[in-house]
Amino acid sequence: MATTRAFRIVVASHGDLARAMLDSAVMICGPVADAVAVDLQPEQSPEAYGQALRSAMGDDGRPVLILTDLLGGTPHNVASLICLESRGTVLSIVCVSGTNLGMLLEAATSMESLDADSIAGLEAAGRASIVDVMPRVDRSSV
Amino acid sequence: MATTRAFRIVVASHGDLARAMLDSAVMICGPVADAVAVDLQPEQSPEAYGQALRSAMGDDGRPVLILTDLLGGTPHNVASLICLESRGTVLSIVCVSGTNLGMLLEAATSMESLDADSIAGLEAAGRASIVDVMPRVDRSSV
Repeated sequence: MATTRAFRIVVASHGDLARAMLDSAVMICGPVADAVAVDLQPEQSPEAYGQALRSAMGDDGRPVLILTDLLGGTPHNVASLICLESRGTVLSIVCVSGTNLGMLLEAATSMESLDADSIAGLEAAGRASIVDVMPRVDRSSV
Repeated sequence: MATTRAFRIVVASHGDLARAMLDSAVMICGPVADAVAVDLQPEQSPEAYGQALRSAMGDDGRPVLILTDLLGGTPHNVASLICLESRGTVLSIVCVSGTNLGMLLEAATSMESLDADSIAGLEAAGRASIVDVMPRVDRSSV
Protein backbone atom coordinates (compact mmCIF):
# COMPACT_ATOMS: atom_id res chain seq x y z
CA MET A 1 0.00 0.00 0.00
CA ALA A 2 1.55 3.30 -1.03
CA THR A 3 0.95 5.84 1.68
CA THR A 4 0.82 9.56 2.03
CA ARG A 5 0.24 9.17 5.75
CA ALA A 6 1.20 12.29 7.68
CA PHE A 7 2.67 10.37 10.62
CA ARG A 8 4.80 7.38 11.46
CA ILE A 9 3.42 4.42 13.39
CA VAL A 10 5.27 2.55 16.11
CA VAL A 11 3.53 -0.50 17.57
CA ALA A 12 4.82 -1.33 21.06
CA SER A 13 4.10 -4.54 22.94
CA HIS A 14 5.12 -7.29 25.30
CA GLY A 15 6.76 -10.16 23.39
CA ASP A 16 6.17 -10.50 19.67
CA LEU A 17 2.64 -9.13 19.66
CA ALA A 18 3.48 -5.85 17.92
CA ARG A 19 5.38 -7.63 15.13
CA ALA A 20 2.58 -10.18 14.68
CA MET A 21 -0.11 -7.49 14.63
CA LEU A 22 1.76 -5.52 12.00
CA ASP A 23 2.24 -8.71 9.96
CA SER A 24 -1.50 -9.40 10.20
CA ALA A 25 -2.25 -5.87 9.01
CA VAL A 26 0.05 -6.47 6.03
CA MET A 27 -1.72 -9.78 5.36
CA ILE A 28 -5.00 -7.83 5.11
CA CYS A 29 -4.10 -4.58 3.38
CA GLY A 30 -0.65 -5.08 1.88
CA PRO A 31 2.61 -3.36 2.82
CA VAL A 32 2.27 -0.69 5.50
CA ALA A 33 4.87 2.03 5.01
CA ASP A 34 6.42 3.96 7.88
CA ALA A 35 5.30 1.49 10.52
CA VAL A 36 7.64 -0.33 12.89
CA ALA A 37 7.05 -2.90 15.62
CA VAL A 38 9.05 -2.66 18.84
CA ASP A 39 8.70 -5.79 20.93
CA LEU A 40 9.67 -5.88 24.60
CA GLN A 41 11.52 -9.11 25.32
CA PRO A 42 11.50 -10.62 28.82
CA GLU A 43 15.16 -9.84 29.52
CA GLN A 44 15.02 -6.30 28.17
CA SER A 45 15.30 -3.34 30.56
CA PRO A 46 12.86 -0.41 30.32
CA GLU A 47 15.83 1.80 29.45
CA ALA A 48 16.89 -0.43 26.55
CA TYR A 49 13.28 -0.64 25.42
CA GLY A 50 13.00 3.15 25.49
CA GLN A 51 16.08 3.41 23.29
CA ALA A 52 14.56 0.94 20.85
CA LEU A 53 11.33 2.96 20.76
CA ARG A 54 13.22 6.20 20.11
CA SER A 55 15.22 4.59 17.32
CA ALA A 56 12.00 3.35 15.73
CA MET A 57 10.51 6.86 15.73
CA GLY A 58 12.90 8.17 13.11
CA ASP A 59 14.68 11.49 13.23
CA ASP A 60 13.03 13.60 10.56
CA GLY A 61 10.63 15.37 12.90
CA ARG A 62 7.56 13.68 11.48
CA PRO A 63 4.72 13.12 14.00
CA VAL A 64 4.66 9.67 15.58
CA LEU A 65 1.72 7.58 16.70
CA ILE A 66 2.75 4.96 19.25
CA LEU A 67 0.16 2.22 19.61
CA THR A 68 0.73 0.16 22.75
CA ASP A 69 -0.67 -3.19 23.77
CA LEU A 70 -1.69 -2.59 27.38
CA LEU A 71 -2.41 0.38 29.60
CA GLY A 72 -0.03 0.16 32.56
CA GLY A 73 2.31 -2.32 30.92
CA THR A 74 6.00 -1.55 30.45
CA PRO A 75 5.76 -0.79 26.70
CA HIS A 76 2.96 1.69 27.38
CA ASN A 77 4.66 3.23 30.39
CA VAL A 78 7.93 3.73 28.54
CA ALA A 79 6.11 5.14 25.52
CA SER A 80 4.11 7.47 27.77
CA LEU A 81 7.33 8.77 29.29
CA ILE A 82 8.66 9.50 25.81
CA CYS A 83 5.42 11.36 25.07
CA LEU A 84 5.81 13.39 28.25
CA GLU A 85 9.40 14.23 27.46
CA SER A 86 8.40 15.49 24.03
CA ARG A 87 6.26 18.23 25.55
CA GLY A 88 7.65 21.60 24.67
CA THR A 89 9.62 20.20 21.73
CA VAL A 90 8.67 20.40 18.06
CA LEU A 91 8.18 16.63 17.87
CA SER A 92 4.54 15.56 18.05
CA ILE A 93 4.09 12.15 19.68
CA VAL A 94 0.76 10.50 20.46
CA CYS A 95 0.49 7.33 22.52
CA VAL A 96 -2.68 5.23 22.55
CA SER A 97 -3.04 1.97 24.49
CA GLY A 98 -5.23 -1.11 24.01
CA THR A 99 -4.38 -1.59 20.36
CA ASN A 100 -6.41 -4.09 18.42
CA LEU A 101 -6.11 -4.96 14.75
CA GLY A 102 -9.00 -2.67 13.78
CA MET A 103 -7.22 0.32 15.36
CA LEU A 104 -3.97 -0.52 13.63
CA LEU A 105 -5.69 -0.84 10.24
CA GLU A 106 -7.50 2.46 10.82
CA ALA A 107 -4.19 4.17 11.60
CA ALA A 108 -2.29 2.45 8.80
CA THR A 109 -4.76 3.59 6.17
CA SER A 110 -5.31 7.07 7.60
CA MET A 111 -4.98 10.05 5.33
CA GLU A 112 -5.49 12.51 8.18
CA SER A 113 -3.03 14.46 10.24
CA LEU A 114 -2.37 13.42 13.83
CA ASP A 115 -4.72 15.75 15.66
CA ALA A 116 -7.33 15.48 18.41
CA ASP A 117 -10.09 14.56 15.96
CA SER A 118 -8.16 11.81 14.21
CA ILE A 119 -6.97 10.37 17.53
CA ALA A 120 -10.55 10.34 18.80
CA GLY A 121 -11.57 8.63 15.56
CA LEU A 122 -8.88 6.03 16.02
CA GLU A 123 -10.01 5.27 19.57
CA ALA A 124 -13.62 5.10 18.40
CA ALA A 125 -12.65 2.64 15.65
CA GLY A 126 -10.88 0.46 18.18
CA ARG A 127 -13.82 0.48 20.56
CA ALA A 128 -16.40 -0.06 17.80
CA SER A 129 -14.53 -3.12 16.58
CA ILE A 130 -15.19 -4.87 19.90
CA VAL A 131 -18.45 -6.66 19.18
CA ASP A 132 -20.19 -9.71 20.60
CA VAL A 133 -21.58 -11.41 17.51
CA MET A 134 -24.49 -13.19 19.11
CA PRO A 135 -26.78 -10.28 20.04
CA ARG A 136 -26.72 -9.53 16.30
CA VAL A 137 -28.05 -12.97 15.55
CA ASP A 138 -30.45 -13.25 18.48
CA ARG A 139 -28.76 -14.58 21.60
CA SER A 140 -32.19 -15.12 23.14
CA SER A 141 -32.82 -18.03 20.81
CA VAL A 142 -29.65 -19.89 21.76
CA MET B 1 -1.63 -19.50 36.65
CA ALA B 2 -3.89 -22.23 38.01
CA THR B 3 -7.40 -21.64 36.81
CA THR B 4 -10.91 -22.56 37.76
CA ARG B 5 -12.21 -20.70 34.74
CA ALA B 6 -15.66 -21.91 33.71
CA PHE B 7 -14.96 -21.66 29.98
CA ARG B 8 -12.30 -22.36 27.39
CA ILE B 9 -10.71 -19.58 25.39
CA VAL B 10 -9.89 -19.76 21.68
CA VAL B 11 -8.06 -16.78 20.19
CA ALA B 12 -8.58 -16.54 16.43
CA SER B 13 -6.62 -14.29 14.09
CA HIS B 14 -5.00 -13.57 10.76
CA GLY B 15 -1.38 -14.76 10.77
CA ASP B 16 0.41 -15.32 14.06
CA LEU B 17 -1.37 -12.60 16.00
CA ALA B 18 -3.43 -14.95 18.18
CA ARG B 19 -0.36 -16.99 19.15
CA ALA B 20 1.65 -13.85 19.89
CA MET B 21 -1.16 -12.30 21.95
CA LEU B 22 -1.50 -15.44 24.02
CA ASP B 23 2.28 -15.54 24.51
CA SER B 24 2.20 -11.90 25.67
CA ALA B 25 -0.58 -12.72 28.13
CA VAL B 26 1.58 -15.56 29.50
CA MET B 27 4.54 -13.16 29.73
CA ILE B 28 2.39 -10.92 31.96
CA CYS B 29 0.36 -13.30 34.10
CA GLY B 30 1.99 -16.72 33.74
CA PRO B 31 0.58 -19.87 32.13
CA VAL B 32 -2.99 -19.52 30.87
CA ALA B 33 -4.80 -22.84 31.09
CA ASP B 34 -7.48 -23.90 28.62
CA ALA B 35 -6.58 -21.27 26.05
CA VAL B 36 -5.58 -22.03 22.48
CA ALA B 37 -4.53 -19.80 19.58
CA VAL B 38 -5.78 -20.61 16.08
CA ASP B 39 -3.92 -18.65 13.45
CA LEU B 40 -5.23 -18.30 9.89
CA GLN B 41 -2.37 -18.70 7.45
CA PRO B 42 -2.49 -17.08 4.01
CA GLU B 43 -2.89 -20.36 2.13
CA GLN B 44 -5.52 -21.79 4.48
CA SER B 45 -9.12 -22.17 3.30
CA PRO B 46 -12.02 -20.99 5.49
CA GLU B 47 -13.15 -24.63 5.68
CA ALA B 48 -9.77 -25.80 6.98
CA TYR B 49 -9.69 -22.90 9.38
CA GLY B 50 -13.14 -23.81 10.66
CA GLN B 51 -11.95 -27.35 11.31
CA ALA B 52 -8.96 -26.01 13.24
CA LEU B 53 -11.25 -23.79 15.31
CA ARG B 54 -13.58 -26.70 16.11
CA SER B 55 -10.63 -28.89 17.13
CA ALA B 56 -9.38 -26.14 19.43
CA MET B 57 -12.75 -25.90 21.19
CA GLY B 58 -12.42 -29.30 22.83
CA ASP B 59 -15.17 -31.89 23.05
CA ASP B 60 -16.18 -31.95 26.70
CA GLY B 61 -19.13 -29.60 26.30
CA ARG B 62 -17.50 -26.79 28.26
CA PRO B 63 -18.51 -23.27 27.15
CA VAL B 64 -16.12 -21.62 24.72
CA LEU B 65 -15.20 -17.97 24.33
CA ILE B 66 -13.77 -17.25 20.88
CA LEU B 67 -11.88 -13.97 20.78
CA THR B 68 -11.27 -12.81 17.21
CA ASP B 69 -8.94 -10.18 15.84
CA LEU B 70 -11.15 -8.30 13.41
CA LEU B 71 -14.86 -7.84 12.80
CA GLY B 72 -15.54 -8.95 9.22
CA GLY B 73 -12.26 -10.80 8.81
CA THR B 74 -12.15 -14.48 7.90
CA PRO B 75 -11.30 -15.71 11.43
CA HIS B 76 -14.24 -13.77 12.85
CA ASN B 77 -16.62 -14.79 10.07
CA VAL B 78 -15.75 -18.47 10.41
CA ALA B 79 -16.04 -18.27 14.21
CA SER B 80 -19.39 -16.49 13.89
CA LEU B 81 -20.67 -19.28 11.68
CA ILE B 82 -19.64 -21.83 14.30
CA CYS B 83 -21.53 -19.74 16.90
CA LEU B 84 -24.60 -19.71 14.70
CA GLU B 85 -24.44 -23.44 14.10
CA SER B 86 -24.28 -24.03 17.86
CA ARG B 87 -27.69 -22.47 18.37
CA GLY B 88 -30.12 -25.04 19.65
CA THR B 89 -27.32 -27.33 20.85
CA VAL B 90 -26.11 -27.74 24.40
CA LEU B 91 -22.73 -26.20 23.56
CA SER B 92 -22.43 -22.56 24.59
CA ILE B 93 -20.16 -20.56 22.29
CA VAL B 94 -19.55 -16.81 22.49
CA CYS B 95 -17.63 -14.91 19.84
CA VAL B 96 -16.27 -11.41 20.46
CA SER B 97 -14.22 -9.44 17.92
CA GLY B 98 -11.62 -6.70 18.23
CA THR B 99 -9.53 -8.48 20.83
CA ASN B 100 -6.78 -6.51 22.51
CA LEU B 101 -4.42 -7.70 25.20
CA GLY B 102 -6.52 -6.16 27.99
CA MET B 103 -9.56 -8.17 26.87
CA LEU B 104 -7.57 -11.38 26.69
CA LEU B 105 -6.13 -10.83 30.17
CA GLU B 106 -9.61 -10.06 31.51
CA ALA B 107 -10.94 -13.30 30.02
CA ALA B 108 -7.91 -15.37 31.04
CA THR B 109 -8.22 -14.36 34.67
CA SER B 110 -12.02 -14.50 34.82
CA MET B 111 -13.67 -16.45 37.59
CA GLU B 112 -17.14 -15.84 36.18
CA SER B 113 -19.36 -17.98 34.03
CA LEU B 114 -19.84 -17.09 30.39
CA ASP B 115 -23.08 -15.12 30.57
CA ALA B 116 -24.40 -11.81 29.27
CA ASP B 117 -22.98 -9.85 32.21
CA SER B 118 -19.49 -11.30 31.97
CA ILE B 119 -19.42 -10.83 28.20
CA ALA B 120 -20.49 -7.20 28.62
CA GLY B 121 -17.77 -6.81 31.24
CA LEU B 122 -15.22 -8.26 28.87
CA GLU B 123 -16.20 -5.86 26.10
CA ALA B 124 -16.13 -2.96 28.55
CA ALA B 125 -12.63 -3.95 29.68
CA GLY B 126 -11.45 -4.03 26.09
CA ARG B 127 -12.95 -0.62 25.31
CA ALA B 128 -11.71 0.93 28.56
CA SER B 129 -8.16 -0.18 27.81
CA ILE B 130 -8.11 2.04 24.71
CA VAL B 131 -6.73 5.29 26.12
CA ASP B 132 -4.88 8.25 24.64
CA VAL B 133 -2.29 9.04 27.29
CA MET B 134 -1.81 12.71 26.57
CA PRO B 135 -5.16 14.15 27.67
CA ARG B 136 -4.26 12.69 31.08
CA VAL B 137 -1.10 14.72 31.17
CA ASP B 138 -2.46 17.90 29.60
CA ARG B 139 -2.31 17.80 25.81
CA SER B 140 -3.02 21.55 25.75
CA SER B 141 0.48 22.25 27.04
CA VAL B 142 2.22 20.31 24.29
